[in-house]
Parts: sequence; C-alpha cells; structure tokens
Amino acid sequence: MIFTCEKQKILEGISIVQKAITGKSTMPILEGIYINTNKTTLTLIGSDMDVSIETSVNATIIEEGSIVIDAKIFGEIIRKLPNSTIRIETIENQLIKITCEKSVFDVVYMNTNEFPELPQINENLKISVNQNILKNMIKGTSFAIAQDETRPILQGILFEVKEKNLNLVALDGYRLAIKSEFLDTDINIEVVIPGKTLNEVSKILEDVDDIVDITFTNNHILFNLERTKIISRLLEGKFINYNSLLPQEHKLFVNVNRQELQNAIERASLMAKEGNTNLIRLDLQQDNLIITSNSQLGKVREEISIKLQGEEIQIAFNSKYLLDVLKNMEESDVIMKMTSGISPCVIQEKDNENAKYLVLPVRLMR
Amino acid sequence: MIFTCEKQKILEGISIVQKAITGKSTMPILEGIYINTNKTTLTLIGSDMDVSIETSVNATIIEEGSIVIDAKIFGEIIRKLPNSTIRIETIENQLIKITCEKSVFDVVYMNTNEFPELPQINENLKISVNQNILKNMIKGTSFAIAQDETRPILQGILFEVKEKNLNLVALDGYRLAIKSEFLDTDINIEVVIPGKTLNEVSKILEDVDDIVDITFTNNHILFNLERTKIISRLLEGKFINYNSLLPQEHKLFVNVNRQELQNAIERASLMAKEGNTNLIRLDLQQDNLIITSNSQLGKVREEISIKLQGEEIQIAFNSKYLLDVLKNMEESDVIMKMTSGISPCVIQEKDNENAKYLVLPVRLMR
Repeated sequence: MIFTCEKQKILEGISIVQKAITGKSTMPILEGIYINTNKTTLTLIGSDMDVSIETSVNATIIEEGSIVIDAKIFGEIIRKLPNSTIRIETIENQLIKITCEKSVFDVVYMNTNEFPELPQINENLKISVNQNILKNMIKGTSFAIAQDETRPILQGILFEVKEKNLNLVALDGYRLAIKSEFLDTDINIEVVIPGKTLNEVSKILEDVDDIVDITFTNNHILFNLERTKIISRLLEGKFINYNSLLPQEHKLFVNVNRQELQNAIERASLMAKEGNTNLIRLDLQQDNLIITSNSQLGKVREEISIKLQGEEIQIAFNSKYLLDVLKNMEESDVIMKMTSGISPCVIQEKDNENAKYLVLPVRLMR
Repeated sequence: MIFTCEKQKILEGISIVQKAITGKSTMPILEGIYINTNKTTLTLIGSDMDVSIETSVNATIIEEGSIVIDAKIFGEIIRKLPNSTIRIETIENQLIKITCEKSVFDVVYMNTNEFPELPQINENLKISVNQNILKNMIKGTSFAIAQDETRPILQGILFEVKEKNLNLVALDGYRLAIKSEFLDTDINIEVVIPGKTLNEVSKILEDVDDIVDITFTNNHILFNLERTKIISRLLEGKFINYNSLLPQEHKLFVNVNRQELQNAIERASLMAKEGNTNLIRLDLQQDNLIITSNSQLGKVREEISIKLQGEEIQIAFNSKYLLDVLKNMEESDVIMKMTSGISPCVIQEKDNENAKYLVLPVRLMR
C-alpha cells in the first residue's frame, strides 16, 4: 500500500472515524483504524462493533492495499506533522513508513483479517433528512435518555416514521422528550437506536442543510452522508407507547419567558442541592410565579411575571428536569400545561408544535 | 452589616480571594470568605493559612460589620444573579439576606472570630516591579519546581534581590530555570516562596505595566497590588547555590530556530513514551540536527537545520525537559551551549540574557 495525501484531509478523516473507537473493547484490533486504498479512493473505518464509521479521503493512490493501525498513535502523529503532503507506505517487518517533509516515522501495523466486516445494508427502506434538522432533533431529545441500565430499551432513542412524520422520542420514567418533523415519505417504521451512537452521529452532522440518507434494516441503521457512512446496531425490544403518557387535556396554561424562567430556576437550584433532590416549589399565581427552595444552607425566593389561564396551584419539581428542557429550547416564550400539583406538566415553545416535553412533578408531603 | 454593590464588582472580588481558598483545610472557617464593611470600604479576604488574599470592592456601606460566608455557595449565588445592584444585610438567626431585583436569598453565615488574622507586615523592606514583568518571570520559572516532596525547599521559587537584579530561580535536580530583571534598589535579600502560592499570584497579576510592591519579612512576603494584597508564608531553609551548577565554559554552540526544534521534539516524543522515559537522541552535525527515538510502537527520525560551532556530538534528553524550556521562550532563535554528551546543556534565547535554562542529559548505555 502506498499513497500520498494532504495532512488536513486525512486528519479530518481520522477525527471522524475515531468517534467510533471507544477504547473500551477487549479486542486490540478495534483500537485501530482500518485503512484501505482502492483505485482512486482512500477509505478509513473505525468500529466498536456497536457502531462503525467509514469515511473517504482525497488521496493519490500509488499502490493498492489495506492495513489497520492504532488509532491513538496514528492520530497523534498525523496531528503533529507539518501542514504538507504526507506519504504513507507499507515497508518490511510489519511497518508503515510515514513521511512528511523531513519527518519520517516507522510504525507497527496490524493485519486487516481480524477487523470486523461492515454489515451489508440494502438501501431499499430509505428516508432523507437535512443534516441540521436531524442534528437539532437528536440534541433536543438525547438528554432525556435513561441513565440507569434497568430498562435497556430506554437507553435508546425511538426513531419513528409514521404518517409522514419523523419522530424522535426519549424518556426515562421522570420526563419525556419528543421532536417531530414533516417527511414526504410513505414509509412507516420504528426502530430504537442506542443513545451513545446517536450522540456520535450528531457530532459528525454539520449545521448545514445538506441531506443525510437514512436506511433501515432489521438489525441496523445506516446514516449516509456525502463522504461518511455511520452504521449502528439497533436496540432489541419494543419502545414504550409514549402517546399513552401524554395527557389529553389540561386545566391550566402558563405563558412565561423562557430565559427568565431558566435563570430563576438555576438560582433556586443553588439552595436545592441537599441530598441531590433538587427540589423546588412553584407557586402559580394569576400574574406571578413564585419559586422557592430551602435547605440547611438557607432559602431562596424568586418571582417572575407569567400569564396564567386557569386556577392557581402549587407544584414541585426536580429542578434539573425543568432546566434540561428549557436549555434545549430556542424560542423566547414557552407554554406550560398542567392540571394539578400531582399530574404531569407538558412544556412547549409557544410557536412551535414540533417539540413537546413532559415532566413529572414531585409529590410533596403535606 | 448592610451594603449594596454592583454584581460585577463583588464577583471580581470573590474570584480574586477564592484563589486562596483551596478547600483542603480541615478548618471549615477557611472555606469561607471574610467580608468586612468599614466606613466606605468593602473588604473580602480568603485564606488557607499558607496564603491569604485581601481585596477591596467599591460598595455603598449602610451599616458596618463583618461576617464569614461559605465561598462556594456565595460565589455561585452572586454569579447567577442578574447584572444589577445587590443588597446584602445580616438578619436574624445567623442569616444574611441577599437581594437583587426579584431574587431573595437567606443564607447561613459563620462568625468571624475563628477566622485567622492576617500577619502584620512592616513595609520597610520593599521593592517594586511591573505586574507583566513579574507575571512573565513566574511563568518562565515555575515549570521547573520539584514535583516530589523529598526536598521541600525545591518546591519553592528562589526570590533573590542581589546587585540591582531580581532573580527568580527554580530547579528540580534535572533542570534549572533562571529569570532576571534589572531593579533599581540597594536591597539585597533572598527568600523562597512556595510554588503554588506564586502560581496563584501570577493568575492575579495582569498583563499591564502597573506596579506591584513586594515587601519582605522574616516569615512572609507581601505582594501589594492597587486593590489587592497577597500574603504568603516563606519556605524555611536555604536554597541550593544555583550558580555553582552553571558550567563556566562550553565547547560547542548550536544556533537553532525555536519553533522548528520544538515541533521536531514534540513529534519525536510520540515514539518515546514507552516506560515514561521520553528518551530522545540528538545527533548534532555541522548543519543538521538529527533527532531520533524508538520504542515498541516504531521509530522516528527528524531533521532540522542548525548552525553548529564546535565538534559534532551525540546527546540524549528527556524530551519533556527540553519542551518545557522551549515552550516558555518567546524569541524565534535559541542557542544551546554544550560540552559533551554527559555534561549539562544551557539553553538561552539568542538576544535575551535575562532567561537562562539548564537541562541535564540522559546518559546512554553503549
């Protein structure tokens, strides 16, 4: 194998495929990057069995071949080389020679035969989304993924294509996040994707409206960007019927400025850390929301203007769950829909039906 | 105690005095900030016994008094309050009330009687230096402070005023760093200041040519900035006679571009990490410096242009020690002065006599 390529180009490729290399595997080969040169294409692959990332890099191929090289040391070497053309070739003794200007590295490589093959994916069942939209949908739901491992299915995000909508849904028993987008397709499908995979996918997605093609199989999902493919296994099992968790009716509606509410809750949380309960109390009055909290450290009282439609109530929350929602919103005004101090609270942006959040209150001892 | 002040002003003060509060003390009072209002001045003090920092803040004093309040919670509350005027007053039940717009905190405070008094310092023995110069001198020497605790005196920086020069010196048995500045004074004194104190001092010093007054006593040193005083205890014992470590003569001189040398050594280090030896070999030729290193991972060869005056030699170093020196230099050209492969190497900037570094080579097994 012999090829030359620009430092910045191959470095970009390495950064992308490294996102699949977690270093947590017991197989040493999975700490490596698979490098393949074929006709006019240099291909890099990183994999941890659960997720594999493949990307192609502009290069001049002089001799075809393939190797696997330790991702960490290879990335460090390339990163520190001058901004110039790099020549990489296999030499004797299981070594590759990396040459760039007056720097010469001889580095041990691994054989490719132990490197896992990528699953074959038939691109029949395919939808297409803008990169920036998908990135935003993942960011807006992934915070609600369950952190504990008691129900593995909740460590994933539901990816549902239904009635010309793409819905991403995550929930953990205390809160629920739903992001939706119109999709011009007749496909109906639902799969559950591991949360950590989707977080890596969202790091590779860019804030541009370029298309990402998404293909489904029984066991895998493929995200196909222009130069990069990400393949993840799916979680087994059926996701919770999230629609049954959403209240059909609400007795009261609160209009409030998002940033003011977030700031007040963040301050109130400072006095709510005791025993990690993060407990804050909301006292909803006709024109004011009073937020209070107290602990051994002291107490706090915050007051902000709201518009309340319905009866005045008191309700308590884990402040972290409210903050997670508010931080993921973009519009300046939000609406909170409630019924009583012990029933779920639905939070939405005022002028955006595409994101819906539900947070359970904390039942107070009277 | 009652006062009002602007959020940004008191927050700046808190950030300064928090640098003395390490949280490592067993005395809870030392996790607090001492707050005192006196006539027209609001004073904040943080201390960990070894170092104390006092700063004054513009405020409107309504009632004199003093308290101690937990630094962490107080800092967090002030940081999260709106950019507006804050009112702080002591109320009943050992509480202070912090009010800012519609936010009200009641927080427990501690009594001041357990808080350590600052040492009284007679300002007779005083020198004055520009803040930016002192900051630069500390940065240029502190990396060479000994990390192990076998010789406590080497965990400090020698602060020597001698023959109209201020010299800062640090060494750890493998390398030595000296920074000097002309000082128009007749004082001659030497003290050793704990390295961690000086690092905190350098964070408070700004890149401006405002003056910092430095006062010496038998046990303490006082850095007096306009609004802020930093008092540190001194290390006991006598510093090593560093002049005896500096070679009087050299047999060979190398002229080299600093950035090229640093880049080449950084790359060579990638192959030198095995067993944490960081061993790199320098092969000094008439016009070229060849740097090599090898390990189980592979090997590397770097080549850069130099001007050598004297005989060609081979010499080996711990690359970390060379890099620490090169990273702390500013000029583009450096001179390395050597005599043999087993004698110390002196490194200086080409046009700057005020900084001098010494690094011991690693003796190679032949």
